[in-house]
Amino acid sequence: MAKRYQKMLLAVDFHEDNAEVIAAARELRELYGAELHLVHVNEPLGMAYAADGVSWGDQVYALEASIRKESEKKMNELKAELGLTDDQCHLLEGRPSSQIHELAEQSRFDLIVLGTHGQHGLQLLLGSTANSVLHGASCDVLAIRLRD
Amino acid sequence: MAKRYQKMLLAVDFHEDNAEVIAAARELRELYGAELHLVHVNEPLGMAYAADGVSWGDQVYALEASIRKESEKKMNELKAELGLTDDQCHLLEGRPSSQIHELAEQSRFDLIVLGTHGQHGLQLLLGSTANSVLHGASCDVLAIRLRD
Repeated sequence: MAKRYQKMLLAVDFHEDNAEVIAAARELRELYGAELHLVHVNEPLGMAYAADGVSWGDQVYALEASIRKESEKKMNELKAELGLTDDQCHLLEGRPSSQIHELAEQSRFDLIVLGTHGQHGLQLLLGSTANSVLHGASCDVLAIRLRD
Repeated sequence: MAKRYQKMLLAVDFHEDNAEVIAAARELRELYGAELHLVHVNEPLGMAYAADGVSWGDQVYALEASIRKESEKKMNELKAELGLTDDQCHLLEGRPSSQIHELAEQSRFDLIVLGTHGQHGLQLLLGSTANSVLHGASCDVLAIRLRD
């Protein structure tokens, strides 16, 4: 019988240390003989600033461009480390959980792997990206607990 | 190198069809060579009724006793199906997410496996048990997407 997971989506956050999530996904890929893809989602700064009524400036655009460039660099490094093709790497912009849901559904992934922190303070009220991804995902979700 | 998962906790809800979650946990147990435990949590009816100010009666106690008995029966069936020992079966009472967190932490599980539905209506606001378990778990959590 075919194993449950054939196509896995590893969602990384380049602002975090992803070593543990990557190791877990590598092991799963090996054990299941699955195809592995990689996704990182940059949240436009506009989403954060627009709500505060802050006026737009060149500085924000420059910062976004620099974040985009840095993400491409990190994506390329991880692509090489994991031996992936360009088609297996997805660098997206938008709300992380929505973008991940959309990609997982359109490309028929059967597992999303991502990291999650222990929640405290404000995070406890707002919930984590992992919770938002789980809430409404069309496939299974494996949340890897990161040590704080 | 030792595999990531050595001790897995399969959380079942006897009010649901657990076939898919059980199949997923079996496969993981085999691939990882891990020890598998089983947990089901009965939520005391008192928790639901107390908030409404409904007075207690024999009927509620009788219903609770019948639910407890039915859970024991189902737990025994699943224990046999999965070839588990008594020590590997945990029938608890309380708030499901809290009980699962406590058990996972005390007995040092490294993965919790449980089912989750697509959320809609009220569930979308309240969140699922899977979300509550993920939120604050001390180990990894795999949520198996159940078809509605």
